[in-house]
Amino acid sequence: MTDLIDGNVHAANVRARTKVRAEAFAAAHGRKPRLDVVIVGNNPASRAYVNTKAKMAHETAIDGRLIELPETVSKEELLGVIAGLNADAGVDGILVQLPLPDHLDGQMMIDAIHPAKDVDGFHPMNVGKLFTASRIDPEAMLIPCTPLGSLLMLLDTVGKEGLSGKKAVVVGRSNIVGKPMAQLLLAYDCTVTIAHSRTKDLPAVCREADILVAAVGRPEMVKGDWIKDGAVVIDVGINRVPTEDGKGRIVGDVATNEAMGKASYITPVPGGVGKMTVACLLHNTIVAAEARVKG
Amino acid sequence: MTDLIDGNVHAANVRARTKVRAEAFAAAHGRKPRLDVVIVGNNPASRAYVNTKAKMAHETAIDGRLIELPETVSKEELLGVIAGLNADAGVDGILVQLPLPDHLDGQMMIDAIHPAKDVDGFHPMNVGKLFTASRIDPEAMLIPCTPLGSLLMLLDTVGKEGLSGKKAVVVGRSNIVGKPMAQLLLAYDCTVTIAHSRTKDLPAVCREADILVAAVGRPEMVKGDWIKDGAVVIDVGINRVPTEDGKGRIVGDVATNEAMGKASYITPVPGGVGKMTVACLLHNTIVAAEARVKG
Repeated sequence: MTDLIDGNVHAANVRARTKVRAEAFAAAHGRKPRLDVVIVGNNPASRAYVNTKAKMAHETAIDGRLIELPETVSKEELLGVIAGLNADAGVDGILVQLPLPDHLDGQMMIDAIHPAKDVDGFHPMNVGKLFTASRIDPEAMLIPCTPLGSLLMLLDTVGKEGLSGKKAVVVGRSNIVGKPMAQLLLAYDCTVTIAHSRTKDLPAVCREADILVAAVGRPEMVKGDWIKDGAVVIDVGINRVPTEDGKGRIVGDVATNEAMGKASYITPVPGGVGKMTVACLLHNTIVAAEARVKG
Repeated sequence: MTDLIDGNVHAANVRARTKVRAEAFAAAHGRKPRLDVVIVGNNPASRAYVNTKAKMAHETAIDGRLIELPETVSKEELLGVIAGLNADAGVDGILVQLPLPDHLDGQMMIDAIHPAKDVDGFHPMNVGKLFTASRIDPEAMLIPCTPLGSLLMLLDTVGKEGLSGKKAVVVGRSNIVGKPMAQLLLAYDCTVTIAHSRTKDLPAVCREADILVAAVGRPEMVKGDWIKDGAVVIDVGINRVPTEDGKGRIVGDVATNEAMGKASYITPVPGGVGKMTVACLLHNTIVAAEARVKG
């Protein structure tokens, strides 16, 4: 029997707690917590994603704003926008939607965001704090949203004792998911293996995992026979694949149908990790807002 | 057949290259690169270690200075000393020797050092840069000295191709060695597992390793039958154990005698990684000095 970990339910819980805090913040400080999302150009996927972020912010009593810049914006102009948001006392969180057009350096823009407003948790200061932390505190740290959401679902599903001493395998070593996810699992006392494109016999490595996190961006790459009986599977992938009717459909990095009956728990795609990513962005916004008013 | 990786030879090479650069720096800028080591109190091991650092600095044409503070120095006084060194244009590298007395917070002091002068590579900004780097560049990053030294010995011994796709197991998850070592090996395309005190069946995990790094601080904990035939073993431990004559002797985290004949290469203790740690500190000092004058 494989149970689905319902991202909608977990995300709704995170958003409900965030909304209570956002309303308390507004009552205490005379303004809503504010999240400014900067988007450059017209990438349709990015547009759809930032619109979801803005909508969810409003539903959570956060003042979510979109700053839309043309594809042709210069490095200096974008740095100027970020500097303005850094200096604006009314802005609690700043997010620059990635990827940026080729003439702009994403890491340079991330480095330019004030660490206290870096709700994506990508600034080197926040990365450094995460990687040196012996204990994970999502109230005191700005942790990248996708791994944070994955961790929170794991904790709600199997508890701390369901992680301690377990073998975790993280497939993928991105700065956005794989590396911070490995650090979170390590802090919860998993024995953590990071696998990637150069890993030899990846199926055998995955078969060792009590906790398997797939974050590679390759549709249904992880097959059923890569999964140990009873493993908990977190599927971070969100991949669009073609269908005969031309509409396409969204699948994860795991062949979910094959995993059913093998895994003890699995996050579905869609309706799994993706829902938590946006909820955790709102969580990070209220954490940043509360920390800023405390000074 | 097991070959020893001679830390004295590797460290002498690093120091020789550093000395050339330090002399060129002095010729170009009218002063030696300068490393200030702050030591608090009278811990004999710390004293011995900082004296070695100062001596090696002088032999490498670096102006190594010791700042000795009493055990009773206050938090404010120590922060003041660090602020003074940060502000002093003649200081290239600052190191606060750990551990500090109980009334002082080591992380607070590390956070107070300017990242550009943080030759230990422990400041969150430098940790963040290391953990987000896709490529390791010891000329452009301040990387913690012990893992950097271990990596350089591995690269000189087995080369990049001897790391790519190999299974590496790092035993120990400290911020000083285990975690940055794992990140370095990951960047060189190892499939990396981090094991620790909560790991179940540690011997079996170690037996999987093509590259085994022991960094736990427990004398000869890693036994011969934990080592895969042909594995490359990096022994980071420096442990003093009692002997009948009362003098004690230094052993590593690996039972070296048992490893002989199983490992393909192993770093001896003493005479292995420890030698590289100090050499890499001097390397980091010249990297910091050169970066500072470039602005």
